[in-house]
Amino acid sequence: MPQLRIALAQVNATVGDLAGNAAQVLAWAGRAAAQGARVVVFPEMMLTGYPVEDLALRASFVTASVAALGDLAARLAADGLGDLAVVVGYLDRRAGMQPRLGLPAGAPQDAAALLHGGQVVITSAKHHLPNYGVFDEYRYFVPGDTLPVFRLPAGRGGGAPVDVAIAVCEDLWQDGGPVAVSCQAGAGLLVVPNASPYEQGKDDSRLLLCQRRAAEAGAPLAYANMIGGQDELVFDGDSIIVDAGGRLLARGPQFEEALVVADVEVAAADLSRAAGREPADAADGTAMTIRRVVLSPAGPGAGAAPVPPGTPEPQALWPRRPDLDEIYAALVLGVRDYITKNGFSSVLVGLSGGIDSALTATIAADAIGPDRVHVVLMPSRYSSDHSVGDAEELVKRQGLNSRTVPIGPMVDAFDAELGLHGLAAENLQARVRGMILMSLSNEHGHLVLTTGNKSELATGYSTLYGDSAGGYGPIKDVPKTLVWALSAWRNEQAAARGEVPPIPENTITKPPSAELSPGQLDSDSLPDYPVLDKLLDDYVEKDMGSAELIAAGHDPALVERVIRLVDRAEYKRRQYPPGPKISAKNFGRDRRLPITSRWREPLPGADR
Amino acid sequence: MPQLRIALAQVNATVGDLAGNAAQVLAWAGRAAAQGARVVVFPEMMLTGYPVEDLALRASFVTASVAALGDLAARLAADGLGDLAVVVGYLDRRAGMQPRLGLPAGAPQDAAALLHGGQVVITSAKHHLPNYGVFDEYRYFVPGDTLPVFRLPAGRGGGAPVDVAIAVCEDLWQDGGPVAVSCQAGAGLLVVPNASPYEQGKDDSRLLLCQRRAAEAGAPLAYANMIGGQDELVFDGDSIIVDAGGRLLARGPQFEEALVVADVEVAAADLSRAAGREPADAADGTAMTIRRVVLSPAGPGAGAAPVPPGTPEPQALWPRRPDLDEIYAALVLGVRDYITKNGFSSVLVGLSGGIDSALTATIAADAIGPDRVHVVLMPSRYSSDHSVGDAEELVKRQGLNSRTVPIGPMVDAFDAELGLHGLAAENLQARVRGMILMSLSNEHGHLVLTTGNKSELATGYSTLYGDSAGGYGPIKDVPKTLVWALSAWRNEQAAARGEVPPIPENTITKPPSAELSPGQLDSDSLPDYPVLDKLLDDYVEKDMGSAELIAAGHDPALVERVIRLVDRAEYKRRQYPPGPKISAKNFGRDRRLPITSRWREPLPGADR
Repeated sequence: MPQLRIALAQVNATVGDLAGNAAQVLAWAGRAAAQGARVVVFPEMMLTGYPVEDLALRASFVTASVAALGDLAARLAADGLGDLAVVVGYLDRRAGMQPRLGLPAGAPQDAAALLHGGQVVITSAKHHLPNYGVFDEYRYFVPGDTLPVFRLPAGRGGGAPVDVAIAVCEDLWQDGGPVAVSCQAGAGLLVVPNASPYEQGKDDSRLLLCQRRAAEAGAPLAYANMIGGQDELVFDGDSIIVDAGGRLLARGPQFEEALVVADVEVAAADLSRAAGREPADAADGTAMTIRRVVLSPAGPGAGAAPVPPGTPEPQALWPRRPDLDEIYAALVLGVRDYITKNGFSSVLVGLSGGIDSALTATIAADAIGPDRVHVVLMPSRYSSDHSVGDAEELVKRQGLNSRTVPIGPMVDAFDAELGLHGLAAENLQARVRGMILMSLSNEHGHLVLTTGNKSELATGYSTLYGDSAGGYGPIKDVPKTLVWALSAWRNEQAAARGEVPPIPENTITKPPSAELSPGQLDSDSLPDYPVLDKLLDDYVEKDMGSAELIAAGHDPALVERVIRLVDRAEYKRRQYPPGPKISAKNFGRDRRLPITSRWREPLPGADR
Repeated sequence: MPQLRIALAQVNATVGDLAGNAAQVLAWAGRAAAQGARVVVFPEMMLTGYPVEDLALRASFVTASVAALGDLAARLAADGLGDLAVVVGYLDRRAGMQPRLGLPAGAPQDAAALLHGGQVVITSAKHHLPNYGVFDEYRYFVPGDTLPVFRLPAGRGGGAPVDVAIAVCEDLWQDGGPVAVSCQAGAGLLVVPNASPYEQGKDDSRLLLCQRRAAEAGAPLAYANMIGGQDELVFDGDSIIVDAGGRLLARGPQFEEALVVADVEVAAADLSRAAGREPADAADGTAMTIRRVVLSPAGPGAGAAPVPPGTPEPQALWPRRPDLDEIYAALVLGVRDYITKNGFSSVLVGLSGGIDSALTATIAADAIGPDRVHVVLMPSRYSSDHSVGDAEELVKRQGLNSRTVPIGPMVDAFDAELGLHGLAAENLQARVRGMILMSLSNEHGHLVLTTGNKSELATGYSTLYGDSAGGYGPIKDVPKTLVWALSAWRNEQAAARGEVPPIPENTITKPPSAELSPGQLDSDSLPDYPVLDKLLDDYVEKDMGSAELIAAGHDPALVERVIRLVDRAEYKRRQYPPGPKISAKNFGRDRRLPITSRWREPLPGADR
């Protein structure tokens, strides 16, 4: 069988930056050619970034994407890359189609194109549109109904022509459609641009999926995924090439840009299948068409040069990150990209001496460097000595920019006017701190990072406009127990490298407290976090009702209490800043519940 | 032709309140029977409220809805209403169906049922699932593929049996599907439960739609819509009955509960069409089935009694509200229902003497009574005399509960620690006010109403955690020019009724100012509001790009400046509280844009 060198460019696109994204395609295509690749695959919606949300409905944006694609094809050829087959995702429109209600007249499509010889040779669009979890693609796109197949001529090194089919992301996750049609089309290789957001454990299902679909397509499969942060999403890369038997040939790094290159045995094209259109059975109840094009043979001197003997093998297999490493890397990338893509150069964190703000500051320092991390210590009369000491120790260990603003005078000024009690007095302290952070942000241009964790966000154990104030919440999708685990892991990593552990040990081991009243502990208001987090995982992420929760072994009284806390805190979550998603269901686009709701999970024995 | 008396119950359902909603069905069905109706139609998702969002994915909630439906059928019969044909919307599941990726195993459906004789006689589900604007139904539901038709026996007063078909809401807005099949089924009447949210002018398109679909169905059409507020949505009622020729027979009031009753000429059923299932052509590319059931004839003494001679005609046609009246009523209902359905008994508004807070307080007073509206005047050194005077005058005119808290001491306490300048100093004042409101809310249990208007929200002319703080934003979807128009209209209405106009004239006529620095006016930072609002309408609601905006006559420099303001303020809008939608596109579920975006609308002559 002919051997084909293919490259997957897992790069970091930015939403809306058509010029910057196109420049990245040019640069990485050059690298792919230099490594002898004949095909390079970029992620889904590479040119526009992903997800573009309602920008897909704006005519000027779709027009700009289509224009940028044509321009890119010409520039690739002008750069001597015309013989490289470049598969790239972009936003297109389907002219002449009457779209569904709610879609603009130029029905938008999540499209992929093959660029070759200075031309946009063939285009297609995603057939299966995900509309669950964080995805709303049925809102934006009309589905594609064409499987494009391009015949790549024999390379300069000989061999035979090969047929390559293109599918897009979700087309791999759902049965039927492009994968089934790829098999009917006799494609020798299926390439798949993706923008697949990270969540814990997704890498495992992704590999199994690629293996299964390669078997169904009867061909090797090359899966190219984006990396980078976009609001709440983090794309992890993890690009994959498997052969038709499911053997792993190449796998990219997680959360880093890379060119993943491998030589793949690809069946020679059946030359009796001519260019043109053929109807196909998508096996999902829809009609699809195979559209086959034959690329012009490489001219003399064109095509990839044979790799000179002695050239080191291109990198194909990167080491996998262990679980905590992977989560931590996701948080760092999400935070870094939110900061830099939004034009900030520094961040501000309120440091309490507790574990949440310690981990948040550490992630920020790892993301953009400690010199760009500013912290404020805001002690009150209820702050313990160890809180201030632990915060100062963290500052010292990491070399952060620190400032102390005691909140007493400001709290007193409010209290003198308003005379607050109980919860109102507690919230006042948190809000004075939030105001100090926002004031310093306005004065100096820092982005305020919010320090709340997922357990707090779930139960509403936070103050609106107080500790929830800020532009981005690095650990909003991290349950408290995982906050501890990540902190311990980060310290161990440092120790293993002979560095000073960044987080003071006392911050990790002491009992958590909001320190808003004398001797207050989280455990006064909430169950122990291991118990709470397990229950929250079952209620929030697994969407179990009360009967299921109790059947799963949770304490009935606790089920009632925690469900009530979670349900009542919906209004707070609506006003919380975004933060990186690392779980299967984050508090954001993943979970959409009404604020106004009288639904109460039925309790055992209750007659309702 | 037989004459049939039908009733549309446009009632106020509450999301999640299965017991309360069922009790409403019982009560209104009793009223319908008392008025001699043989069929009563309730809104879409009447039993669960609408929209239930991700509650549709929770098994316990679907189970409870199905159980509540069966229970309701039995209770109707027990109440002597077994002979009344009750059409009611609820949440169901489609057992045995393999749903799409992302949907739970018991594929949820937006369903409607006919309750009769103590039984759930027949059920069906919405065929067309809206997934645009504020709707995400493709996320939640699998589509229905059955058109149910029930044959109502001749009434006690004689006549002939009639066939009645049921479609649900969006089935009316899209071509093909249930309307087409209703015609094939020879139904003599098409009844349609709806949960159709208000927006300006929608009532006009709704009537035209009913007329067109009645013509297509070849039968009278009865459209029952919900009323009430649910987070950002306000349902306006406006239920409609038209005959097959499009003649308006009945139309309910807007924003009020009502029973809309009319006698409709309905073709007699074709008795050769037997009970059972027949395949149909949905004319939209999908396969549908007609399912016909025949209800048992009314027993002796059963069925609606003939209306005694001399009984006054039931009300069928309510007067229409003029445009400003309609918008104001929507705001009042949205605010009232958010307050009461969330269990609050009072609200708190920061009163500046300006038009936004004046209108907000007035809406609140109209919603829940002035005795439950608390206001705080929070003057600063930059507050003009007229601001305080105008605010005090408003308090006096409406009889609100008022308190004054000068912000000077608190601002000084922050300033002494932080030494803020420019924008940071301005924001500080707004945030001190926000904190005072939130502190008083925590102390006294009032819901804080946010006073920002849509023009501010669009351009980011507000302070995060300052004037944007609060639980609900009554005028967040109201552009500034409309704020003035509504205020003037509300005063005129009062004057026409011989009441004191609630809003001081000076508040309406003076130039708007945030009063955060000496002599500050909105016009220092923003174009004149009539110019701005026109541009915002074209950019935000009509989604025009810069070239279109300039072609539409907007000043190019202003287009660039305003687009930039709008795009940069996305992060602020994400943390804004909900508020009632009155426009075709609100800042909420209607408009979903990334925060992180480098997209800049291309400017004329710019080379990009």
